[in-house]
Amino acid sequence: MTEFASLRPLLDRLQTNLPIIQAPMAGTSSPALAAAASNAGALGSIGVGATNAAGAQKMIADFRARSDRSLNVNVFCHEPARTDPAREATWIERLRPEFRRLNAQPPAQLTEIYQSFVADKQMLEMLLAVKPRVVSFHFGIPPAQSISALRSAGVVTLASATSLAEAQIAERGGVDAVVAQGYEAGGHRGVFDPDAADDRLGTLALTRLLVRRLAVPVIAAGGIMDGAGIAAVLQLGASAAQMGTAFIACPESDADAGFRAALASDAAHHTTLTRVISGRPARCLANKFTAFGLGVEAADIPQYPIAYDAGKALNAAGKSAGEPGYGAQWAGQGAPLARSLPAAELIGTLVNEIRHARHFGPI
Amino acid sequence: MTEFASLRPLLDRLQTNLPIIQAPMAGTSSPALAAAASNAGALGSIGVGATNAAGAQKMIADFRARSDRSLNVNVFCHEPARTDPAREATWIERLRPEFRRLNAQPPAQLTEIYQSFVADKQMLEMLLAVKPRVVSFHFGIPPAQSISALRSAGVVTLASATSLAEAQIAERGGVDAVVAQGYEAGGHRGVFDPDAADDRLGTLALTRLLVRRLAVPVIAAGGIMDGAGIAAVLQLGASAAQMGTAFIACPESDADAGFRAALASDAAHHTTLTRVISGRPARCLANKFTAFGLGVEAADIPQYPIAYDAGKALNAAGKSAGEPGYGAQWAGQGAPLARSLPAAELIGTLVNEIRHARHFGPI
Repeated sequence: MTEFASLRPLLDRLQTNLPIIQAPMAGTSSPALAAAASNAGALGSIGVGATNAAGAQKMIADFRARSDRSLNVNVFCHEPARTDPAREATWIERLRPEFRRLNAQPPAQLTEIYQSFVADKQMLEMLLAVKPRVVSFHFGIPPAQSISALRSAGVVTLASATSLAEAQIAERGGVDAVVAQGYEAGGHRGVFDPDAADDRLGTLALTRLLVRRLAVPVIAAGGIMDGAGIAAVLQLGASAAQMGTAFIACPESDADAGFRAALASDAAHHTTLTRVISGRPARCLANKFTAFGLGVEAADIPQYPIAYDAGKALNAAGKSAGEPGYGAQWAGQGAPLARSLPAAELIGTLVNEIRHARHFGPI
Repeated sequence: MTEFASLRPLLDRLQTNLPIIQAPMAGTSSPALAAAASNAGALGSIGVGATNAAGAQKMIADFRARSDRSLNVNVFCHEPARTDPAREATWIERLRPEFRRLNAQPPAQLTEIYQSFVADKQMLEMLLAVKPRVVSFHFGIPPAQSISALRSAGVVTLASATSLAEAQIAERGGVDAVVAQGYEAGGHRGVFDPDAADDRLGTLALTRLLVRRLAVPVIAAGGIMDGAGIAAVLQLGASAAQMGTAFIACPESDADAGFRAALASDAAHHTTLTRVISGRPARCLANKFTAFGLGVEAADIPQYPIAYDAGKALNAAGKSAGEPGYGAQWAGQGAPLARSLPAAELIGTLVNEIRHARHFGPI
């Protein structure tokens, strides 16, 4: 097709028709959702940061049983956690009253529930063997030899950045494109160092800055919910829009009933960045867990993903007690505009909306 | 002209050609800047929140000596300050070491250095007499009878909103259009209640939400620095873009040399919301004053604008000592893209950039 001609350098590499990436959302973006998105012409994504090489390979196989299109596999590239038994023990006690309220007990101890990609050789070897079309990095970039190995295998690499400094590190690191993750975005903020000062750049400001300053293509993420939002970021010079929250309510996603109900309610109007659930800042629907977090100092929270061990246990206790408010209900600021449509139908709607984008005056 | 036809309902009321509003910035947006902006086809604005009716009338006259085009006069509609002598005395002591570092003394006491428009009958009477084309409200809206009096006098009214809830209050209050002030925006955040929880909505998410949910036109503000940014917010459905930081470096602005130098430096990459300078959250270039504010609890700061009495004194002491880092260097997240051009030239450039906005596929 001749549409989106100026976006082709990136879209051709992704081997996808539309400037739309269904965002990786570990725990929510199922292989079924990714396959539906890819089959509809977007780039479907899965997040494998919370599993190991075997689990990831199974998810990729599940996708491939449903689609022969491009797939984006997202991995977490945080610095591996340093355990701190005293802090972790204190944290368990801090959470004990929350568990008690749910007639449950906290875990006796917390562990690093999954490995960072930077330390996971098996994951790299698996990816080099199965060669998804795209691998994307969050929380940083892996060692240069991992990136070059992936690229040599024909894999396109993307990296999230929340600032120009992070984007320049990713560009120098050799990635094919940078995802400008604005402050609006749901889920984990891609900040490389969770303890550094965060300029909290909004999607509009960050996308435009990166487009002006980088040589590689930029993908905009954060607060984009419809064709108008996609058209807007394309005007900013982005080569594609990455949308997560827009896909949460799709029937193909793994979002649970409590999450879907919250997203469809007035609760969608209030999201907040919290660190208490996982140990890293992430944007979540304001709920009981984020309210608990308001009085917590960052230094008291175990490192990511050790804190997430407790967070997942508390969520499980909540679900058992019929209380969905302890869930990791990751969502962006555009949440009130989420639509509950099958992914293919949603993407068809988005394309129609882009085609009806405003056109101003002679060019 | 036939350009921007879909934007005409708002632009016709503003009696302006371009979907560009040079934002009111009290202390920076001089009558000369506003006149240059209006003469170039945009809507020029002055902020009169920090002066009284006589001062405002003089500024309007100054504008009118330079332009017969539309003018937007911005007023502050905060709840009038409640004095708290103990808190103010403690605050003076808290600032004393900063003054000492500059070989200066803090003021002996702090006063409410200017009135809120909601309590300033003379300002209302003056505006009803001189009838600027547009009056805009920040920090809330004035009583219904003030809005209806202005509208009956033929004045178009605008109000800033940072959330759907604030926007709906403004719409129900009868304003002609709402300025969606995103988190990226420089200067004072328009939050109606500075002590309430703030969802910190980015420009992209907020603008789209308000366009979808309001009946009145929406003007987008925050992080918009060039024609691509304007084209982006028009795609979101905004009827115009309001730009402040883009105009700070214009020679017609009242920005001082220290501010201009900071804006043109790497310092522009770091802005932060601070409450210590004025008593209300405002986005400022990260500087010595905002660094001081990092350790301060909101409850310790006198109410706006009482705290600003101390803040302005500290800035003056800094300037006398050759230290510009205590200035109220209000700037948005787009600051690295600021251009030092005369306002007319900047607006001409913006129009060219909009005309070269991307066009995707058939409509």
